[in-house]
Amino acid sequence: MYIILVYDFGENRVAKALKTCRKYLTWVQNSVFEGEITEGNLKKLKIELGNKMNKDEDSLIIYTLSKNKYINKEIIGFEKNKPTVFF
Amino acid sequence: MYIILVYDFGENRVAKALKTCRKYLTWVQNSVFEGEITEGNLKKLKIELGNKMNKDEDSLIIYTLSKNKYINKEIIGFEKNKPTVFF
Repeated sequence: MYIILVYDFGENRVAKALKTCRKYLTWVQNSVFEGEITEGNLKKLKIELGNKMNKDEDSLIIYTLSKNKYINKEIIGFEKNKPTVFF
Repeated sequence: MYIILVYDFGENRVAKALKTCRKYLTWVQNSVFEGEITEGNLKKLKIELGNKMNKDEDSLIIYTLSKNKYINKEIIGFEKNKPTVFF
């Protein structure tokens, strides 16, 4: 399946969330990740993030998309994860 | 069409971006909005945000989804836009 994941974690938990998400998904912007992921890995990711978050303050949204992913993705402005910069 | 919009704007431009997005979409988390939008309004929204952003620093991603929206949306943790709080 293909997912878009956005998190809003408290300042002292953001770095851990970033590190965890990077293991499974591609970073696209600030606290936004996306990518193809197996059901098993999504389960793992949710457990790992769940252990790191403060559920009274932090928020995590996971959009599961169809196989076609999205119809279109438009990036305006600075593309923060330009492959030339990060790979 | 249905869109998910995520922005990453510099601190002194965030409030303006938030205000602009609220005119057209539903706020879901931090710098994430979503909603049904006409092509005309999307054009307006992009122009308005484009005028407010610094294109060398700020980033805006617009995912356009099919009519079926997403297959699933899961919110873990604190649901920041609970209707009881905001309406």
